[in-house]
Amino acid sequence: MTSENLLKQIEFIKEIDKIKYIQRKTKLFNSDRRENDAEHSWHLAMMALVLSEHSNENIDILKVIKMVLIHDIVEIDAGDTFIYDTNKDHVNTEEEQKGAERIFGILPKSQADEFIQIWKEFEAGESNEAKFAKSLDRLEPLLQNVSNDGGTWKEFGVKHDSVFKKQKVMKEGSKVLWNFAEGLIESSVEKGFLEK
Amino acid sequence: MTSENLLKQIEFIKEIDKIKYIQRKTKLFNSDRRENDAEHSWHLAMMALVLSEHSNENIDILKVIKMVLIHDIVEIDAGDTFIYDTNKDHVNTEEEQKGAERIFGILPKSQADEFIQIWKEFEAGESNEAKFAKSLDRLEPLLQNVSNDGGTWKEFGVKHDSVFKKQKVMKEGSKVLWNFAEGLIESSVEKGFLEK
Repeated sequence: MTSENLLKQIEFIKEIDKIKYIQRKTKLFNSDRRENDAEHSWHLAMMALVLSEHSNENIDILKVIKMVLIHDIVEIDAGDTFIYDTNKDHVNTEEEQKGAERIFGILPKSQADEFIQIWKEFEAGESNEAKFAKSLDRLEPLLQNVSNDGGTWKEFGVKHDSVFKKQKVMKEGSKVLWNFAEGLIESSVEKGFLEK
Repeated sequence: MTSENLLKQIEFIKEIDKIKYIQRKTKLFNSDRRENDAEHSWHLAMMALVLSEHSNENIDILKVIKMVLIHDIVEIDAGDTFIYDTNKDHVNTEEEQKGAERIFGILPKSQADEFIQIWKEFEAGESNEAKFAKSLDRLEPLLQNVSNDGGTWKEFGVKHDSVFKKQKVMKEGSKVLWNFAEGLIESSVEKGFLEK
């Protein structure tokens, strides 16, 4: 007989498939095709594995990976919010809170509690793991936009100061990555990918 | 100045974006849209987090997650092989070996060595972590095919005995998951999703 826990876990596994339909604004590298949240989350998990040595502080890499794997699952209910959206702030909307409770709530209670806690920790951005995870979440679209000669910056008329301000939080997680990113931002201005 | 290590890591991060274009045969849940390798790898990593309690043996969950995140990266060079392909065996083709060396070889040496080692360990399927990772790699398309009233089984005329034989390896990693899977296979026959 199949345990109740397993049935809940299988239900959750089916539900989160929907993240593959959530389109981000940012496009794949050297591409016209928008990225979806599953692809984005996989890429951040790979970046966590590969770039962990550049974290400012010692981090629990498994926790960082959990954060980046699950950080966008709430968008199944709340949708993707463009980071440069001027009408709607991305952080901690009520829709996202409810989404977290509904979707993670499909799991057995102890797992649901753990995932909601990790998601909240990521959103709060205060722990070393959350700071590093957020650095990765900033770096991937930056690399993509550079590869696409400006990408969403050009498409949506986003200017240097907005990019600099949003990207600077990367420094909290990794001075090394921020130093690299700053160079990319400056050279993007020089190349005409980003308007000053 | 950006370190040589970081430049190699960034190059690798760009290169593996290509996995998002590798289409699997299997389709998303309740869907006509084929899954790509990035989406598949993300889903397996989530399954590893959620289902680890059902592993037959104690496992290093971080290693399982590394395995499932990277296991299909070689397909950037070698392409996806359908598990029920009768002409080409999936396991350890020369193309995949070369792919692993080229793609993981973009990384700094110690990381490249670690990733190649983990990929080989997954392919060998002998360690507890590899056995559990392979169970997940079998379970996801089974769930998808059931959700699609037979999915690729119907599409490619795959019959019960082939499915049973390929799926049975799941037992090595998780008797609990295999027990559940066996029930799904039998009920698929009853429902006419799978021909006996």
